[in-house]
Order: sequence, then C-alpha cells, then structure tokens
Amino acid sequence: MASNVQPPRGMRDFLPDEKARREAVLAAIRDSFGSYGYREIETPVVEELNRLESGEGGDNEKLIFRIQKRGLDPDAPLPPGSAADLGLRFDLTLPLARFYATHRAELPEVFRAIQIAPVWRAERPQRGRYRQFHQCDIDVVGEPGPVAEVELIVATLDALEALGVQGGSVRLNDREVLAGLLDACGFAPEAQPGVLVTVDKLDREGLEGIAKELAAHDLPAGPSERLLDVLGELTAAEGDFDATLATLPGRAPERAERLLEIRDGVLEAKPDARLVADATLVRGQGYYTGTIFELSHPGYEGSIGGGGRYDGMVGRFLGVDVPACGFSIGFERVVDLVDPARFRAARRRVALVYTDEVPPGRLVAWQRRLIGVGADVRLVPRRRNLGRQLEALGAEGFGEWAELDGTTRPPATSGAAGLDLRDLH
Amino acid sequence: MASNVQPPRGMRDFLPDEKARREAVLAAIRDSFGSYGYREIETPVVEELNRLESGEGGDNEKLIFRIQKRGLDPDAPLPPGSAADLGLRFDLTLPLARFYATHRAELPEVFRAIQIAPVWRAERPQRGRYRQFHQCDIDVVGEPGPVAEVELIVATLDALEALGVQGGSVRLNDREVLAGLLDACGFAPEAQPGVLVTVDKLDREGLEGIAKELAAHDLPAGPSERLLDVLGELTAAEGDFDATLATLPGRAPERAERLLEIRDGVLEAKPDARLVADATLVRGQGYYTGTIFELSHPGYEGSIGGGGRYDGMVGRFLGVDVPACGFSIGFERVVDLVDPARFRAARRRVALVYTDEVPPGRLVAWQRRLIGVGADVRLVPRRRNLGRQLEALGAEGFGEWAELDGTTRPPATSGAAGLDLRDLH
Repeated sequence: MASNVQPPRGMRDFLPDEKARREAVLAAIRDSFGSYGYREIETPVVEELNRLESGEGGDNEKLIFRIQKRGLDPDAPLPPGSAADLGLRFDLTLPLARFYATHRAELPEVFRAIQIAPVWRAERPQRGRYRQFHQCDIDVVGEPGPVAEVELIVATLDALEALGVQGGSVRLNDREVLAGLLDACGFAPEAQPGVLVTVDKLDREGLEGIAKELAAHDLPAGPSERLLDVLGELTAAEGDFDATLATLPGRAPERAERLLEIRDGVLEAKPDARLVADATLVRGQGYYTGTIFELSHPGYEGSIGGGGRYDGMVGRFLGVDVPACGFSIGFERVVDLVDPARFRAARRRVALVYTDEVPPGRLVAWQRRLIGVGADVRLVPRRRNLGRQLEALGAEGFGEWAELDGTTRPPATSGAAGLDLRDLH
Repeated sequence: MASNVQPPRGMRDFLPDEKARREAVLAAIRDSFGSYGYREIETPVVEELNRLESGEGGDNEKLIFRIQKRGLDPDAPLPPGSAADLGLRFDLTLPLARFYATHRAELPEVFRAIQIAPVWRAERPQRGRYRQFHQCDIDVVGEPGPVAEVELIVATLDALEALGVQGGSVRLNDREVLAGLLDACGFAPEAQPGVLVTVDKLDREGLEGIAKELAAHDLPAGPSERLLDVLGELTAAEGDFDATLATLPGRAPERAERLLEIRDGVLEAKPDARLVADATLVRGQGYYTGTIFELSHPGYEGSIGGGGRYDGMVGRFLGVDVPACGFSIGFERVVDLVDPARFRAARRRVALVYTDEVPPGRLVAWQRRLIGVGADVRLVPRRRNLGRQLEALGAEGFGEWAELDGTTRPPATSGAAGLDLRDLH
C-alpha cells in the first residue's frame, strides 16, 4: 500500500494544532455551560437501531451508519435490513431522552445536561459537511415553563461570547404558531408537512421562489395566496416580535404570549441579546412540540446551532411524559469563528535537542527535571539542519531549546529565551 | 415502551459525578503526557474494514463492530461479509499508523502522539470488560533507539503518579528474545505460535499448568522439557534482569543488551521505577516486533496497560518502514484506582431555589450576575421538601443556596456558606 492513505470518506483526522484548538474551544463551551449549573453526561456512541429509527428524527434517520449483528455467517446471504441491530447516533437528543428514561431515579427532578460529543451522518460529503462531527448540547429535562427556554438561550449566547464570538442572534418560533398559521390560511392538515418544507426555504429562495414552489405543487390557490400575503407581511416585520405576532392569523394566543415572555426574559437577563421573531422557522426534526430556535452569526451563512422543546420524546421511552427543551451548538461551524490566538498553551515549551552520544537515561532524566520545574519538554534528535528543526519546533510552540551532547555536564548552550541547563545538575 | 430502557449491551452511560471524575482523570493523564512534549491527535472512530482486518490485530479482529455500506437495498439478500465496508476501531495503534502514513509530510520527523479516546470490541460482557472503553496511548513514531522505550515507560509511570496511583510496575520483554528462547529449546517455527499462547499463561497457571498444557499438545518431548527447565529458572530469577538474561538460552545478545539499556535508562531517569524482566511476557497482538511491556498494579489483577515496538506497521500503509513504539494505559482499570477525593470541582457551586412567582427573566438575570462573580449557579424550582432538595444538591457539590420569590428585591435568605443575594441588586 502506498501514499494515498486517507481516513474514511467524509471524515477527518485532526493534527496536533487543530486538535488543541478544538479541545480548547470545547473546554470553554463546557465551562460556560457548567457555570449555569449544567453537568456533563456521556452515552455510548451507538444506540439500538429501532430507537434511532423511530420516525421522529426526520431526514437524519436516512443517514444512519448501521452496525451488523455480531456472529453472522459472513457468507450466508441475509437482507441487510435484518442484519443490523445498532446504529451510530445522528444527534445527541435521542440518546439523552433514552438516558433520562434509564436513569430517572438517580437524576434531579429538573435535570440539566451537557453533552459534548461526536455524531455521525452518512451525508454526501461537501465543504463544511462531515460524516463525523461534534455537537455541543445543553438540555433541561423536567421543566415545562419558559424559564427553560430563557436559560438555554442566554447560556448559549454566553458560551459564544466566552469564545470571543460576538454578534450571534437567535431566531424564535413555535411549532404550534406555525401550525395555526397554516390552518388559518386554509391548508388541509395532510398538505401542511409539504408546505412547511417550502416555507422553510424562505430565507434562501425569497418570496418569489416560494410562490413558484407553491404553484408547482398541486395545492388550492386560496390558501397559497393567503400564505404569500402573510409571508410578505412577515418579511416586512423584519423579525420584530410585536409586528410579527400581530401579523399572524390564527396563531394560538397562549403560544404567542409565551414567545413574548421568552423574549422579555432573555432581554431582562441579557440586555444585549439579539432576538428575532421568525414565524417561518421550521426546523426539520419531527420531535419538536413547541418553541423552536436557531442560532445565526454574520460570519456564517445558515444556522450555527438550534434547538427547541420536545415534550413528547422522553415519554416514548419512559411511558410517562416529561417536558424537555434543548439547544445544540453546531461545533464545526462555531470553531471556525473563533480567533485561534485566543487559546494558546500556557505552559513553557522546551525542546531538548540531543546527539546520539547522550545515553537515553541521562536524556530522560534531564527532561524530567525540566518538567518538574513547570515546562513541557520534548526530546528532539539533532539533524544537520538545526535551524530548520528549531523553526518547526517554534511553530509548534516549542520556542525554547537547549542542545545536549555526550559530555557529563550539559553544555552552556541556551535557546532563544535563555534556558540554561547548567542549573539542572 | 416502559421502564426497562438500557444502553446497548456491554456499554455504559456515565452520570454527571462519574463523567466528571473520568474527565478529570483523563485531563490529568493528558497533561502528564503533554509535559513530555507529546501532542494529542484525533482520528475518526471508524476505519476501512480491510485495514482493521489485516491479520496483525490478533484476536481483536474477531471483535470488530462492522458497519454496513450505505445505500443497500434493505430487503435484497447479501452475504454480510460483502455488505460491510467500515468498522469501529478496536485499538488506537492501527489508526495512528494510518494517520502517520496519511500526514507524514506535516509531522515532525520523530512524532510523539497522544491519543485519548474510546475503542470498541464486541467481547462477551463481564465484570470490568466493556464493549466501548477508553484507552490512553502515547506513541513515538520515527525513533529507532531505546530512548523511545525509556521515555514511554517513564512518562507512563509519571502519568500514574500524577493520578496519585503509586506502586505501578512494568514488566519487560522482547519478541526476539522470546523467539530465540523457543528456537534454542528446539521448537519448530510452525509450533512456536501455539507454544507462545501456552507460555503466556504462566502467571495464571503456574509451571504445572504449563507442563500439562504442553503435554496435551502434539509436541516433541525434548523441546517441552527444555522449555519447562528454563521457565523454572526464570521463575526463580523473580524478574531480576541479570539473572533472567543469564538464564536464557539462545537469546539474541543485542536484544538482551537493549533490554538492559532500557532498564538502566529508566532507572537513571526515575530511580524509584519498578521494572521486572519477564522473558515469558507475550502480548497478543501480531504487530509487535521488538520490546514489549506490560503495566501492573497491586490494586488490579492482570495488566492495567501495555505496549511495545511495532516497527513494521507504519510501513504497511506508507510503503516505507518507520520505527514505532507505544504505551497504552487501560483507562477503565486505572480510573478505579484513583481516589475520588483527588479531583473536586474548584468553583463555588450555588443553587438558586425559586418559586413560580419569579419571572424567568429576573431569575436568569440573578443567576447570570452570580456567574459573573465566579460561581456555577443552578436554578432549582422549590418543592415542598426543601430539605431533601438541598441534601441532593449538596451531594452534587451545590453546597450554597438562596431562595427567591416574587418580591422585587431578593429575600435575605442565605445558604450554609452565607451567600446573600441582597448584594446583587
């Protein structure tokens, strides 16, 4: 086998610099979430396939990596549909609901969870889309009131700010407001899912695009016209909550009231938060039951996170309904918005350049003494072109160095920052 | 679906306390490895199946979780052997070799890698054996000399000590010493793999057990008798290097010399290191080519880590041989040896107990101000039995608390440690 060795399609290796940056960003998000009293949990990367394929995961269910049952005869033909029993998770919400159902007795009545972990989707690989990627989720399980939404939104915006990512904004909607809008326009219930898929494209396609797509469907003209009128007014409202909610026909008043309560709550807790009412926000997953939200940032086209209320999912595992709401940061998009200079190694990094004459034990003994006084110390065999070696080491943050040879006492050589090994004897 | 909801067989959920402890232990190992100038990388959890099934992974290859190709017709029968193309990795060594082959041009000539990550093996679940578990590996790729072994052993022992786990010891052997021993006893090359499997059981079965097992095989009597004599002498040598190496017939002198050099090096760098010569140490994986070692601790029967030199594996991907050596800590065994009191949250943890009358925004605003002065703050809805709530919160480390109701100013209520919310207005 030769040089064309790559990781599996659509998946990535992370080299040390990138790995360090990712871990630093994840740690900052973890700490920020932790400051809101959330605590991290972990579930296995796989779940039973029948749980993943419940029908509530939307299109993501088509993207599951399926794992074969163990102990199959490799040569005995079998329909693939019955040869698999596990799947790699495609999000962190379903595993959390399963986790809560498994461990409810050991958890606080209102449980606040952090999950920072990879998920897998067999999507067609393209720029910015990967088949293994990280999500950073916080969820509140057991709290029916809007305090869950307010806290989730504020905590998520604060996590972004902890990364130095300013300017994030959250678009808000409610699944029931959306359903009420389509009802009021006169769409039959069976037509609504298709119409929602179209409405979801308003951002990208504009009003004209939506009009074309509605016309292409076999829909009665009246409801489509009424919908286009409303969408026009909504666009004009530019995300203003009062104007948006005043525009909406047939909205469930208590749900609209709740959206306002969430907006007011977020602004009281975090006056500089940017919130936008978006009555056309859909979000794909079937499991959302109430409030839904999406996180945007001027540095990225499309959303960099999202979430909502999914009051029905835990009940599916537990047999008892438990309200739940969560917010997920799309880490792969956010990490690119973070200034790399923000997270630098704090410890001193020292290279010990050595020749063949130095006995290994003496070398590691010196290394260990330097570690003992607080440095990260790497052993580096000296090559002809020391200058190039030092350059590469500097790029990795090993800006100090010393050279050792076979003499009993280390030489007086010192690196850029004046490290002197003579003190170490 | 009802209460009997469990994670997939042989896999575990981690609740917040356990997750926090695991992450703290992993972070301490990561930092300790980092102090030796190693840097962390990450590879995808899956690799191409044909890479995982190279035949060098020993029994672990039988334990691979295989992933079905995407886009298969779920109803069209297909031999499972041709329906899978990816597998969950069973260790971190093979992915590292693949990673190095992929990225060699971007890596230092001698590359020191940390990998701290889960692996998967479809073993029969039993106490202490899981189907998803963490390994903590360090590897040196590109260094042929014994400085690699010396550093890996010292760094691994230091990582254990950073966890407060004293008393670890390392058993050392060399695959070529082992082969030389069997040659000298007179075993034919084709008999040697089976004899090695038997020799590997010396610890558990004792000399008599080995004698029985050798007799049960269809082996010539002479070599078996000679081997039992040597094993008797080796047992009497009790791990002393000089006695062990003097005992060995047919040992490759330069390999024995090297074992001594490694021992001397480790002891010079870390005089309190416990090293044992074990000429019967085998280790299962087929990929080892030279030095092999295993980590033991009195608190755990069996090894808590191991590794060795695998000079041939990178070449299989790269087409050019590159020397490599690694040490892997079996995290699931080590984490149980760590005193839980060693890693406690450093930040102040405060519970804000609230009633329904408090508007969500005000609640989160107070929470956020407390966070701003350095606390982790959790919102907790007040129930009838506040005492029990506080007890549970205390167990989670939320030892301070305050109670809020609907009055404009927060009440004077203060928790155990005297937190007074009046200052926050």
